[in-house]
Amino acid sequence: MTRGLAVGLAGLGRMGRIHAENLAARCASAHLACVFDADPVVAAAVAERLDVPWTASYDGLLDACAAVAVATSTGSHADLAVAAAEAGRHVFCEKPISLDRAAALTTVHAAARAGIVFQVGFHRRFDPDWVAANERIQAGELGEVTFFRTSLRDMNPPDPAYLTGSGGFFVDVTVHDLDVARWMVGEVVEVTAHGAASDPAFAAIGDIDTAVVVLRFAGGALGVIDNSRSARYGYECSTEVMGSLATARIDAPRRRGYEWRTPGLASHDLPRDFEERYPQAYAAEVEGFARCVLDGTAPRVTGLDALAAFDLAMAADVSWRTGRSVALTPRPTATGVVYETEEVPA
Amino acid sequence: MTRGLAVGLAGLGRMGRIHAENLAARCASAHLACVFDADPVVAAAVAERLDVPWTASYDGLLDACAAVAVATSTGSHADLAVAAAEAGRHVFCEKPISLDRAAALTTVHAAARAGIVFQVGFHRRFDPDWVAANERIQAGELGEVTFFRTSLRDMNPPDPAYLTGSGGFFVDVTVHDLDVARWMVGEVVEVTAHGAASDPAFAAIGDIDTAVVVLRFAGGALGVIDNSRSARYGYECSTEVMGSLATARIDAPRRRGYEWRTPGLASHDLPRDFEERYPQAYAAEVEGFARCVLDGTAPRVTGLDALAAFDLAMAADVSWRTGRSVALTPRPTATGVVYETEEVPA
Amino acid sequence: MTRGLAVGLAGLGRMGRIHAENLAARCASAHLACVFDADPVVAAAVAERLDVPWTASYDGLLDACAAVAVATSTGSHADLAVAAAEAGRHVFCEKPISLDRAAALTTVHAAARAGIVFQVGFHRRFDPDWVAANERIQAGELGEVTFFRTSLRDMNPPDPAYLTGSGGFFVDVTVHDLDVARWMVGEVVEVTAHGAASDPAFAAIGDIDTAVVVLRFAGGALGVIDNSRSARYGYECSTEVMGSLATARIDAPRRRGYEWRTPGLASHDLPRDFEERYPQAYAAEVEGFARCVLDGTAPRVTGLDALAAFDLAMAADVSWRTGRSVALTPRPTATGVVYETEEVPA
Amino acid sequence: MTRGLAVGLAGLGRMGRIHAENLAARCASAHLACVFDADPVVAAAVAERLDVPWTASYDGLLDACAAVAVATSTGSHADLAVAAAEAGRHVFCEKPISLDRAAALTTVHAAARAGIVFQVGFHRRFDPDWVAANERIQAGELGEVTFFRTSLRDMNPPDPAYLTGSGGFFVDVTVHDLDVARWMVGEVVEVTAHGAASDPAFAAIGDIDTAVVVLRFAGGALGVIDNSRSARYGYECSTEVMGSLATARIDAPRRRGYEWRTPGLASHDLPRDFEERYPQAYAAEVEGFARCVLDGTAPRVTGLDALAAFDLAMAADVSWRTGRSVALTPRPTATGVVYETEEVPA
Repeated sequence: MTRGLAVGLAGLGRMGRIHAENLAARCASAHLACVFDADPVVAAAVAERLDVPWTASYDGLLDACAAVAVATSTGSHADLAVAAAEAGRHVFCEKPISLDRAAALTTVHAAARAGIVFQVGFHRRFDPDWVAANERIQAGELGEVTFFRTSLRDMNPPDPAYLTGSGGFFVDVTVHDLDVARWMVGEVVEVTAHGAASDPAFAAIGDIDTAVVVLRFAGGALGVIDNSRSARYGYECSTEVMGSLATARIDAPRRRGYEWRTPGLASHDLPRDFEERYPQAYAAEVEGFARCVLDGTAPRVTGLDALAAFDLAMAADVSWRTGRSVALTPRPTATGVVYETEEVPA
Repeated sequence: MTRGLAVGLAGLGRMGRIHAENLAARCASAHLACVFDADPVVAAAVAERLDVPWTASYDGLLDACAAVAVATSTGSHADLAVAAAEAGRHVFCEKPISLDRAAALTTVHAAARAGIVFQVGFHRRFDPDWVAANERIQAGELGEVTFFRTSLRDMNPPDPAYLTGSGGFFVDVTVHDLDVARWMVGEVVEVTAHGAASDPAFAAIGDIDTAVVVLRFAGGALGVIDNSRSARYGYECSTEVMGSLATARIDAPRRRGYEWRTPGLASHDLPRDFEERYPQAYAAEVEGFARCVLDGTAPRVTGLDALAAFDLAMAADVSWRTGRSVALTPRPTATGVVYETEEVPA
Repeated sequence: MTRGLAVGLAGLGRMGRIHAENLAARCASAHLACVFDADPVVAAAVAERLDVPWTASYDGLLDACAAVAVATSTGSHADLAVAAAEAGRHVFCEKPISLDRAAALTTVHAAARAGIVFQVGFHRRFDPDWVAANERIQAGELGEVTFFRTSLRDMNPPDPAYLTGSGGFFVDVTVHDLDVARWMVGEVVEVTAHGAASDPAFAAIGDIDTAVVVLRFAGGALGVIDNSRSARYGYECSTEVMGSLATARIDAPRRRGYEWRTPGLASHDLPRDFEERYPQAYAAEVEGFARCVLDGTAPRVTGLDALAAFDLAMAADVSWRTGRSVALTPRPTATGVVYETEEVPA
Repeated sequence: MTRGLAVGLAGLGRMGRIHAENLAARCASAHLACVFDADPVVAAAVAERLDVPWTASYDGLLDACAAVAVATSTGSHADLAVAAAEAGRHVFCEKPISLDRAAALTTVHAAARAGIVFQVGFHRRFDPDWVAANERIQAGELGEVTFFRTSLRDMNPPDPAYLTGSGGFFVDVTVHDLDVARWMVGEVVEVTAHGAASDPAFAAIGDIDTAVVVLRFAGGALGVIDNSRSARYGYECSTEVMGSLATARIDAPRRRGYEWRTPGLASHDLPRDFEERYPQAYAAEVEGFARCVLDGTAPRVTGLDALAAFDLAMAADVSWRTGRSVALTPRPTATGVVYETEEVPA
């Protein structure tokens, strides 16, 4: 007997392994049907450990499943997702769909044409803390939103090799906060970004490790995002939404629920990375994806959502490079909001 | 393909359903092989919802599994556990094994004779917060323990019908804190209990809903437990261990990691019952049980541990009824500590 | 120009210096008129530092003031207070009035006869945190009180020399929590005390450094106090009052309002002694005393309150020595409640 | 006998009354020698309540004191301060010195020429929380500062009548955070400001009630300030300084140290305005001023500090109005840093 949706997993790097564990043992509505990786040794090892089949070809993976989770390196997301869609497989795709906007758009269209469920991996929309707060916000309990503030900070910078293919700071890091901003507050009409390299290694490659991004929402509210790749004290993700009636502050600064007291000092631990902070969110996003497929409902994070967050991240990138604010025009369509960008005239 | 240990589940009341969900969808090393309940309608409904087989007979359940989880009403725990042991099935048994000490002891012996893994359901030993703190305590980071304090408080009292078969306040509620006391600090040599009925309904049936139990440990430290069936504000479980070098305080007073601010007031939610507080612990205890079976290791909570906690709870009951302290003599044996009780002479 | 009530201060040890600073610079309704100490060198030094007169005789102090604060060593409190009362001076007296109950009672009567304001130094009744919570409790916002818990813990044990004249653990330490119990919840009808010496130095002199005291209130609620002279991590004073409608928890575990984050760890400081924890309470209690004198109102802590807390502490001492609960009969009188003690029959 | 420095107080509005209370009853090194207000009825009433002399003329005030605290309406600060300086009186001046930069500069020069102590009222530099954290930062415990974040939020907007003479949002509100930024992190070389009016009343008068100001420090770090006049939930002032070794977070979100628990909810109070948040800071700043005068030391907030914060606030104002970043050139001088502003070329 197997549970729910048969999901094939492509890509067994860090995110792939998180999804593998969740699909194998923590999802009520899905199971891990097969794993695939460009490196068959990796695939075989994970398969053995989790007691699931593996395959050396992506086609083999598609044959073995009703839905596929794409967690390969970024460059192959779009192609694999399109192939899956064309084969009629539902797709859960890690973010970003592509660093090439045209390829991302092609993927979104392919998924739409195929009529499959296509969900992108913005996990924070599935974290119980954010979900609970946002439910109250969407229900109007905050009144009119007047200010938004969010932080995403990594404890230590990634390996330089990773940075090359990451799409840059805003596309790699800020994009999560931009998605949360849209989810909680609404569409953005202006982005202004500032960056700095606290670590000279970033300056050396023309990149940054710290950023402040100021948002102006269509509803008039201001927002601010701060991001760091080198917060040093730990991994932090916190968000505040201020409204005319109340303010919600989401934060979970403890990993384990105990305090340790030594002479004159009380301390508690901090999460060190996203795996320690978000075990529930990662399990919930694949469970949510399976429920959409099984129930025929729309995913919480669509391809257009991913595209919108990408467009906002690119606008931040342009703003940082030019030192100007970037205006955006979110345009409602039948399937979701599409952003058009125009730079603020000098 | 199925995961790990085939566990049959007997009893589909509140605790049974928690175990069913965890075995069905949240355990890496076990799966739910079959369910059984005295009421076949209940069994069939749960089986359908979770897509697992069910059976109308306990023998049928034993046939379908390598291990059994006993979560029926308390009165049948011992008989079902003994039957399973004699059939060579490993047993996870909800607490208490029995309200009749002789029957509990018989069960422990039957399990030992059969050479099976026998684990009792003290879930707090599997909660990540308690586990993380206790690892540091057992590693000696606190120095010598000088004081122990723990609270277990239910939000609202149970249905009176439940109380009749519960074994009384100390066996039903305090027993959890007594187990934690032994786990974290060590053996207890004196118990003094005080009780009160804040709700007249308890007084009317000669029972209490609030208690303070003072412990004296073999190592010389004092300890204190406070319990309530009617804390009203929520479900709370918190523990403090004070040592000569440090003090550990375990507490998790938020259910969701966000704060809500309204004029002049910041608030956060509180868990309302053990299900809301302990989802991770309940999943971890059945996973831990499966690992013991698969790896051939000893369970974290043995039958003798359950017996010891029961003996301490009965000592508390005697102390409360007589108004005297009760002395105990924990005796090490080859398989664990066994308590002998003697009342303090008047 | 001088502010408000002219207060003479007798005794310039640790508590005396706290009162001196507050009277000299932090009271709106009183000023430090003169200081006296058994050691004239000490008196002269403090006087010079604070720019106030000093005197080498207690009579000289009485001549220089309208009210006196007695903060000498415990043995002389009663005599000095009586002398002041007989001279018509209002008296703020550090606790305890006396370790000899008869002498304490004589003092209370002398104060009553003289018609002066007589206030005893239970500072927690003046701390803004406790006051704010207790106002809501007395207003009935908790509903019926069902449980009370309080801790008073010193970071490090006092000098052994101090212990000799301290009146013992319960009179010296627990008495503060007993006063708070009466203030917040009401009269106590049974006391059961348990003690331990975590530090062998205490055992060597037949004393304890850790205690648990269980209270039964006249209204039926249970209460529990835990005390330590050697908490090691810091000074802590926290109180919880549980009611049928709500629960209040008073705690102020930070000294400075900032958090310090290092890799994987967030920490904040803890107060190290009562001076660090209670600067506001000590200032407020002498200000409150001055207001009573100036406004002709009754003090918040009367001599009978001090006597009641002392009687409860002595009952705890008896209980600890005999291993029995001690029953008490609080008797209302025109001026306040008086306790009569009778041991629980064996 | 009177304490320490004789301070005359000019202006008995909201801030004046806070200083009056502190000088009258909470300063060890100063006393309130005389009060003056444009409205003699107000002066007489305050004088009577605090039992101090009053005068109907500012010259009379100068005659009665060695130092003066200027807390009149903003427009008269500079003239009164200059008059006091020329009379050889030390000056504590509420912020801002003047909304006219030339007048502020004249005042700073007059104070320097007179050789008096001249301190400006940036109270946060005297709050024990900020002071304790900043001591560790200045000692290098954070390592290199990489990011700075601070919030100042009022609960409710001020009366429109007040706004007219306030100098605008950045000069009235942000200026406090700008001073803290310089104090904790160092000089600022670029300011970019964004504003919004969440309350239409502000838009109607061409003003804002919400702002985000991005800073670039001379040392390379980024900083961000968020401000609101209408946070609604309470008054909040919190600051975070992130460094390569540690991160400090200053926050004091509770006014009273107790938690109130009702079914499913735990809550605590929030300060509602700066008076509730900063009683210690306001007392400490006048005490600190008196110590500078008595000890001949330099004040913690000089006239040039006030000028620098004003210049940064004006740069923010320009940035907000033009939509451009404003570059600044902090220039060290013998007596402190002076800012020169140049707009970023379009």
